Amino acid sequence: MTRFKLTIEYDGGDFVGWQRQDNGPSVQQSIEEAIVAFCGEHATTYAAGRTDTGVHALGQVVHVDLEREASARTVRDAINFHLRPRPVAVLRAEIVGPDFHARFSAVERAYLYRIANRKAPLALDRGRAWWVTQSLDEGAMAEAARVLVGHHDFTSFRSTACQSASPIKTLDVLDVTRQGEELRIVARARSFLHRQVRNLVGTLKLVGEGKWSAADVARALDARERAAAGPTAPPEGLYLTDVRY
Amino acid sequence: MTRFKLTIEYDGGDFVGWQRQDNGPSVQQSIEEAIVAFCGEHATTYAAGRTDTGVHALGQVVHVDLEREASARTVRDAINFHLRPRPVAVLRAEIVGPDFHARFSAVERAYLYRIANRKAPLALDRGRAWWVTQSLDEGAMAEAARVLVGHHDFTSFRSTACQSASPIKTLDVLDVTRQGEELRIVARARSFLHRQVRNLVGTLKLVGEGKWSAADVARALDARERAAAGPTAPPEGLYLTDVRY
Repeated sequence: MTRFKLTIEYDGGDFVGWQRQDNGPSVQQSIEEAIVAFCGEHATTYAAGRTDTGVHALGQVVHVDLEREASARTVRDAINFHLRPRPVAVLRAEIVGPDFHARFSAVERAYLYRIANRKAPLALDRGRAWWVTQSLDEGAMAEAARVLVGHHDFTSFRSTACQSASPIKTLDVLDVTRQGEELRIVARARSFLHRQVRNLVGTLKLVGEGKWSAADVARALDARERAAAGPTAPPEGLYLTDVRY
Repeated sequence: MTRFKLTIEYDGGDFVGWQRQDNGPSVQQSIEEAIVAFCGEHATTYAAGRTDTGVHALGQVVHVDLEREASARTVRDAINFHLRPRPVAVLRAEIVGPDFHARFSAVERAYLYRIANRKAPLALDRGRAWWVTQSLDEGAMAEAARVLVGHHDFTSFRSTACQSASPIKTLDVLDVTRQGEELRIVARARSFLHRQVRNLVGTLKLVGEGKWSAADVARALDARERAAAGPTAPPEGLYLTDVRY
């Protein structure tokens, strides 16, 4: 038995999310079916982040144990071959030790959230960014983001369905920058609560529009109540970009 | 009658190209139908570059004359409204004088060609870049590109169906750079021959693979014969990025 670490990319728009569901195709099911097609093994894959419906990945990390003796390169190419034509690709495969766990060994997860801030609808970035027509003040958003960085009770920013034992997390980075008509929000932490990044982004957007101040964001954080913070940003702007071990 | 200059973006994968065709939806038809839906006028649109099937645009320029008295902003928003859900968007509309012509007034056109140079198939950039698995030497490609810059007879690099009166053009810029796994080829000229950029890229790829040298490219240029140069790169990597007036 060999444990493989797979770094994968996908277009979340075609999936119900990472995890197997009854209501549609998941990334997990696609990869597990490709593994069956490759070597006949019904192996379970474990991912660093269970991305929601519509959320993309540029560097999701997965591990899987295979009986088949194969090089990492063969595993990468064979899974990719059998994944076609689905928009999922194994960027890298590596052989790792038996104590490597994609989810539990991760020491940092990084997400990117893209906002297309313009009047015109999106032709090329449709489904790949949140289209926001109101002009956003990225300086005010960056300032409010600094209120959220650090060790906090993030109850106000987690989905009411979140199953995490504790709402207390350390948010290491929450940067907001503008590149022309695109706002890019980068979040880094050891781990995140369910929908945390999208709830942070939805709240920062209120600041960008001038409806909320950084002080309002601080009050929302202190309230420890989901209803106190802003709405959930849509999934299509969110990318799991990388996981560190 | 007011002449409007429209700067537009589109995903070429959904169209048979800019120009109206009998065999499928064109960008031109989409825009002209949106204008009919907006103001009832059957106006003809003229574009700076008649992009082929599958070629994208980030900054195509079009002009059209409308009887309807409307602000540039209204024209932009109304056309965008009626373009939905097609992947075409008017980024900007401006009122211009009657002697502005999107095609004939242009003094420079710029194209970007994206090559995804990696082993893994493309999940997010499928249809948006040319997937090339062989490792490409961008330094050799950049050197060979310098042979092509300047005032030349580009017969070897134009489609045999090209209707241009003369094959002699001045290529002002042909830059090859790498950003990680992506090669970006930027071409700038007053005007291009039919398929010229894709034929240049297909030839530079031979250099990147080590099959051709810069001297082979010079010989192909001198031959003034399409068969002497490399194959045509696929349309999905090509973007018309901007047009200067």
